[in-house]
Amino acid sequence: MHRNSLIKQIEEKQSYLCVGLDTDILRIPKHLQQNKNAIVDFNKAIIDATKEFCVSFKINTAFYEALGSKGWAAMEETTAYIPDTHLKIADAKRGDIGNTSSQYARAFFETLNFDAITVAPYMGEDSIRPFLEYEDKWTIVLGLTSNKGADDFEMLKLVTDSEEHLRSELLYERVLRTVSQWGSPDNCMFVTGATQATEFENIRSIIPDHFLLVPGVGFQGGSLADVSKYGMNKDCGLLVNASRAIIFAGSGEDFAEEAAMIAKQYQTEMKLYLA
Amino acid sequence: MHRNSLIKQIEEKQSYLCVGLDTDILRIPKHLQQNKNAIVDFNKAIIDATKEFCVSFKINTAFYEALGSKGWAAMEETTAYIPDTHLKIADAKRGDIGNTSSQYARAFFETLNFDAITVAPYMGEDSIRPFLEYEDKWTIVLGLTSNKGADDFEMLKLVTDSEEHLRSELLYERVLRTVSQWGSPDNCMFVTGATQATEFENIRSIIPDHFLLVPGVGFQGGSLADVSKYGMNKDCGLLVNASRAIIFAGSGEDFAEEAAMIAKQYQTEMKLYLA
Repeated sequence: MHRNSLIKQIEEKQSYLCVGLDTDILRIPKHLQQNKNAIVDFNKAIIDATKEFCVSFKINTAFYEALGSKGWAAMEETTAYIPDTHLKIADAKRGDIGNTSSQYARAFFETLNFDAITVAPYMGEDSIRPFLEYEDKWTIVLGLTSNKGADDFEMLKLVTDSEEHLRSELLYERVLRTVSQWGSPDNCMFVTGATQATEFENIRSIIPDHFLLVPGVGFQGGSLADVSKYGMNKDCGLLVNASRAIIFAGSGEDFAEEAAMIAKQYQTEMKLYLA
Repeated sequence: MHRNSLIKQIEEKQSYLCVGLDTDILRIPKHLQQNKNAIVDFNKAIIDATKEFCVSFKINTAFYEALGSKGWAAMEETTAYIPDTHLKIADAKRGDIGNTSSQYARAFFETLNFDAITVAPYMGEDSIRPFLEYEDKWTIVLGLTSNKGADDFEMLKLVTDSEEHLRSELLYERVLRTVSQWGSPDNCMFVTGATQATEFENIRSIIPDHFLLVPGVGFQGGSLADVSKYGMNKDCGLLVNASRAIIFAGSGEDFAEEAAMIAKQYQTEMKLYLA
């Protein structure tokens, strides 16, 4: 998906919501659990009910892999069902030596036809380049994540020769600076957690134009208001993800309506921030 | 697999070889390509031919995912075929927030019954803990990788308050120091590339007791002699992986015999270093 198409979707829907399909088989409504294709049936109902209020769906590969090759097949069927108007993100956190990353890119961009994949930066340039080589596909690199463990390495202070940084450069800042030189705002985004809202002004000073994929709103406690205030740029530049808060909003036969209601709440709030 | 079983295997076979099943469908012998289960047929032949000379098999998930759910099924079938005497490693480079890493652990340790998985450290403690909680399973964390991109972030100098480090601490050193506090030499290993042999003495000063999974011998040019000289500890403490150099040694009907010959060469050399 081209950047312009994504921006147009955001404007038309007045939403920058991404719905995360972290579909845990143990948490889907009881009346679906005996279905042969329970995961896919659940996902299709969630997609149908929420697509009006969001511009993207994100599939968390872990929940599908936990079910083995049947889970992988459910991921294929779900991805094929997501409308082409919506940015399809594989939240896969892949990354390996170049030869292997090329295979991951093939898996997610060709075989599964995702528009975007999340990638871990630890192994450096040749682990990320193969993803960037695809036209109209997006590489979403981990910057500052939403979890407690972000403090362990991402926030470490680096020795820097440069005079231009008033404070010591942090590892995640270096990742943003370096990776944004490899990709462009047209093919590269960064994951920046909503629980890190105090860092968003700083993040925007480093990468003013890139889209940010922001998890951590909802169950993890991040603030949509703060993320929007400090993270938005002239093109919106945000995709805010909520997973459990939406897809498991209800547990009865009306689970899809419940999910739609929460998605609509997010969209209504986003409309205010876009104004 | 318990640490003692692994050490016993190494002693009995006089080998610390891991054969990497990076099975690229485009590179397997022509006479197999039309088989319905070509990948599995190839893998089974390689496993049968090389198991005498190695103590571990490593499956690179990317090559299977590139083929979609059929590839994932081929991974399941291959893993089930690896003898229980051999450490089964999923080279998957996973890692996500705790809730999601738990699902990856379930996928690889329960559904697929691997003994070990490679994990990326960027997201910190809660991304790694769920893997460490499994008894007799191994979490193999990326330390210093074999690729050129290792220079981009892994080798960055950190600001450190400690007096004890004579040179600035590097990011990968901090990863080794920190993660080795979370796991123990009984459930945690580190990936350290064979192309980084000059760093092995330093690595051993930080983690003297942990096993190291060492890729980069063979096609990538690392030296088995140097890795063994600087990386071996009293329990051997090494698993040296070769993938392409072994499995694609031949391309004709005798590909398995060719693979066995190369595996045997490695084992013969390893026997010398173990003496």
